[in-house]
Amino acid sequence: MSKSTLKPSLRKNFAENVRNFRTLLGISQERLAELAGFHRTYVSQVERCVANVTIDNIEKLAHALNVKPATLLELPIIQD
Amino acid sequence: MSKSTLKPSLRKNFAENVRNFRTLLGISQERLAELAGFHRTYVSQVERCVANVTIDNIEKLAHALNVKPATLLELPIIQD
Repeated sequence: MSKSTLKPSLRKNFAENVRNFRTLLGISQERLAELAGFHRTYVSQVERCVANVTIDNIEKLAHALNVKPATLLELPIIQD
Repeated sequence: MSKSTLKPSLRKNFAENVRNFRTLLGISQERLAELAGFHRTYVSQVERCVANVTIDNIEKLAHALNVKPATLLELPIIQD
């Protein structure tokens, strides 16, 4: 109930979306990092909300995940 | 014609959206920076595509502009 009124941070939405779309593709964090041209630990940092990802890296991740960048900022459809 | 096949960078879309929504609000770059809690020159850097804005700052700008963060990554409706 009150949960729906809590505004999750954008970083958290982004992290969940990256994990959800990556899981849908059936690839590991390391493989996604490789596809997007990042260090192998970077996707893990993104999915743990540790990284304050830049817009250039949002674009690279979206391209690697084959989704629109804006989609990664939306409220995740699949919730924990 | 061929223009529609050119993929503008996400940074450029974001810059145009920030400028368009800021203009709709009738506020200066300096005022938007103040509202979002940035240095007064930061919005100018964003709108000139100089800044590689972070997701935390995308959230702050969206909040100050009263739009959804994802909206700022969409293809701008108002083109140059």
